[in-house]
Amino acid sequence: MDSVKVGLIGLGTIGVGVAEILLGKSDEIARKVGKRVELVKICDKDTTTDRGITLPSGMLTSDVTELFNDPEISIVIELIGGLEPARTFILRALESGKNVVTANKALIANCGAELFAKARECGRTIGFEASVCGGVPVLAALQTSLLANKIESIQAICNGTCNFVLSEMESKGAAYEDAVKEAQRLGFAEADPTLDVNGSDATQKLAILAHLAFGAQVDWKTIPRVGVDVVNAIDVRFAKVLGRKIRLVATARLTDDGLALKTSPTLVPEDSALAKVTSAFNAVQIVGDFVGPLFYQGWGAGRRPTASAVCSDVIDAALGRVRITFDSLRLWSPEREGVAIQDASKLSGRAYLRFVVEDRPGVMAEISSALGRRNISIAQMMQDSHDVSPNVSLIILTHEASSAALAAALDELRSAPFIHGETTLLDVVD
Amino acid sequence: MDSVKVGLIGLGTIGVGVAEILLGKSDEIARKVGKRVELVKICDKDTTTDRGITLPSGMLTSDVTELFNDPEISIVIELIGGLEPARTFILRALESGKNVVTANKALIANCGAELFAKARECGRTIGFEASVCGGVPVLAALQTSLLANKIESIQAICNGTCNFVLSEMESKGAAYEDAVKEAQRLGFAEADPTLDVNGSDATQKLAILAHLAFGAQVDWKTIPRVGVDVVNAIDVRFAKVLGRKIRLVATARLTDDGLALKTSPTLVPEDSALAKVTSAFNAVQIVGDFVGPLFYQGWGAGRRPTASAVCSDVIDAALGRVRITFDSLRLWSPEREGVAIQDASKLSGRAYLRFVVEDRPGVMAEISSALGRRNISIAQMMQDSHDVSPNVSLIILTHEASSAALAAALDELRSAPFIHGETTLLDVVD
Repeated sequence: MDSVKVGLIGLGTIGVGVAEILLGKSDEIARKVGKRVELVKICDKDTTTDRGITLPSGMLTSDVTELFNDPEISIVIELIGGLEPARTFILRALESGKNVVTANKALIANCGAELFAKARECGRTIGFEASVCGGVPVLAALQTSLLANKIESIQAICNGTCNFVLSEMESKGAAYEDAVKEAQRLGFAEADPTLDVNGSDATQKLAILAHLAFGAQVDWKTIPRVGVDVVNAIDVRFAKVLGRKIRLVATARLTDDGLALKTSPTLVPEDSALAKVTSAFNAVQIVGDFVGPLFYQGWGAGRRPTASAVCSDVIDAALGRVRITFDSLRLWSPEREGVAIQDASKLSGRAYLRFVVEDRPGVMAEISSALGRRNISIAQMMQDSHDVSPNVSLIILTHEASSAALAAALDELRSAPFIHGETTLLDVVD
Repeated sequence: MDSVKVGLIGLGTIGVGVAEILLGKSDEIARKVGKRVELVKICDKDTTTDRGITLPSGMLTSDVTELFNDPEISIVIELIGGLEPARTFILRALESGKNVVTANKALIANCGAELFAKARECGRTIGFEASVCGGVPVLAALQTSLLANKIESIQAICNGTCNFVLSEMESKGAAYEDAVKEAQRLGFAEADPTLDVNGSDATQKLAILAHLAFGAQVDWKTIPRVGVDVVNAIDVRFAKVLGRKIRLVATARLTDDGLALKTSPTLVPEDSALAKVTSAFNAVQIVGDFVGPLFYQGWGAGRRPTASAVCSDVIDAALGRVRITFDSLRLWSPEREGVAIQDASKLSGRAYLRFVVEDRPGVMAEISSALGRRNISIAQMMQDSHDVSPNVSLIILTHEASSAALAAALDELRSAPFIHGETTLLDVVD
């Protein structure tokens, strides 16, 4: 039976999961697909820590050049994460004639064009299913199963940490900080959760989804982004009163003005599919012109689900399917046509606003009037004195409104003497 | 640009959708995948009916040999459904050197081994994504994305007609017969819905899923099967009282005794993902040892979603991906290893029982004792006189019990003088 030899860079959490599959299931996979996928070398700078996995002697090295220089290795898996040295290692792997598989969304989102150009130059491929939504095969769907569709929109809950935090606030009434601590305690959040809770991670994944679904080549840093770190326990409580739940939703939506992109905590109807996504689950709703709405849910992170996605790419690369997909789609190439990105100032949608205001006559009138002057129409208004007495929390749900108009109204109101503290602005979808 | 020529047999509902995509999106698809997929010939015995689509002159023929004999056509799509002449046409297409794409689950479930053997003999391929769950790319997941997993279970709501009927009974309190009529009126059920409502269609799809996920080669007719035609409005009402909804679930579950297969109306918890699947939607929950639970939901039938799946297969065949998948998985071949099927008499699970009994002392004791003698333990018991007065409906939820024991108990009770009419037995999952 044919055999394909594989090298792995990075024996962290995901790396161990991948090694478990490739070492433990070698026979099972060979029987299933008629080809043997053999993990022959693992590189990690730490070669001594016990990771609870037994490796054949001589397999683990701290010298990455051993992988690049081994002519028998045809696939290199990069699982160290972050930009460097991951970027350099992938470039060197491609230059050494290896096909690459990676789970590194930050790297794909930041350096996709460079890496894919290098792969084409070297006649090699890059598989990256695990970079978005872990075990949920949503990139495969966009790259193969949905090709007959014009994709109309994508809504993704693609950061498990944030979803866990929001679920925790919802089910236990927890404060944001306590929910983050609980996520850290359970291993759902890193020691420094900044890139998760400020929405960067979800937005990088959104940029990748937007490229696959719409051909858009967008710098993720230019995508409007709000993280779960602005969500307060009171927002979760108010959302509930409004028959809604808050989810961090990364959205790409085709409009007459181009592709609208945004990541934001979003009030979704409590009986919607997105609202049912709890704990650290990920979910993606894709709407295509022929397939209609297609909904996926599964584990988006963690050792075993992410390893499942990495190894499916390894098998696909070994069998030659990645080659076909890579050549036909020409991802991140100048040839790949994409839709234009809608200017962020042109975004519009329903909004949830929360102000802490003085409890006196005239305040509501002034706020309504600041909104009304900018054509922002109010759908619902509520107030509550919990926690902020003698002030009150004032919640406003708007009808569809322009983001620019909302920003201008909030700018004006920020200097109003009757408003205290920060104003919260979240998205609302029906 | 390379071009691949396609012939289509069957211009019914799905055929029109496929023609819409291949004729209307030819440029869009070519730009996306770098290859042109050209529909050049359509065969239907009816060449005169206006189907609301404009075809290039000369494209429509009633002579199927025109497709087989056209050396330029490399892919033939079969969309006539049913066993014959679909089977003969596919065999002839393969013998004529064409790759085949089909949406025909009855044919794949009944003749998979024959068709795939012929394809291998002719060096050609068969794509059949659309045969299960229409637009939901669940076969692609099992054939590619989940290959690193040992699949542990599949639960599928894979018949839109049945799900619509159950949803209608649930939301409107409709009688079964009225729900079926409403489904027919809206085009969700055929004039003769027998194969849908008796569970045959779902069970054929289950046999296909079981082969892909577990390698099982099983005659679908041997799989225990109960259809929605046994469900009464009163069952839907009782399910609600029990915090459950009824869904037609096709299940494949790996047990120590082999693969347990069954199709049955099933009481699922009302907050479960399956319970949220309403209207004619399809859904599949796959559990893999690494990916964990993966949930899909989308339209499982209809012109546009099914055409989306058919055309993704056509594109995959044109690009050569189907070739790789086909060769590596060796589906329905003697070489493909599969798990053994659990003997149907060994199945076990929780059950919902409904009896119509005389309202007098001693009846409950006799029923409990008939169950108890066979080690069937009762979790819950309720009665209700609605509609069956002077008799009462007696509902029993059992704990996990052997199907054989249940069948024996019901056989005994059927002849009891205090039981009137048919006894209903549905599955229960937690």
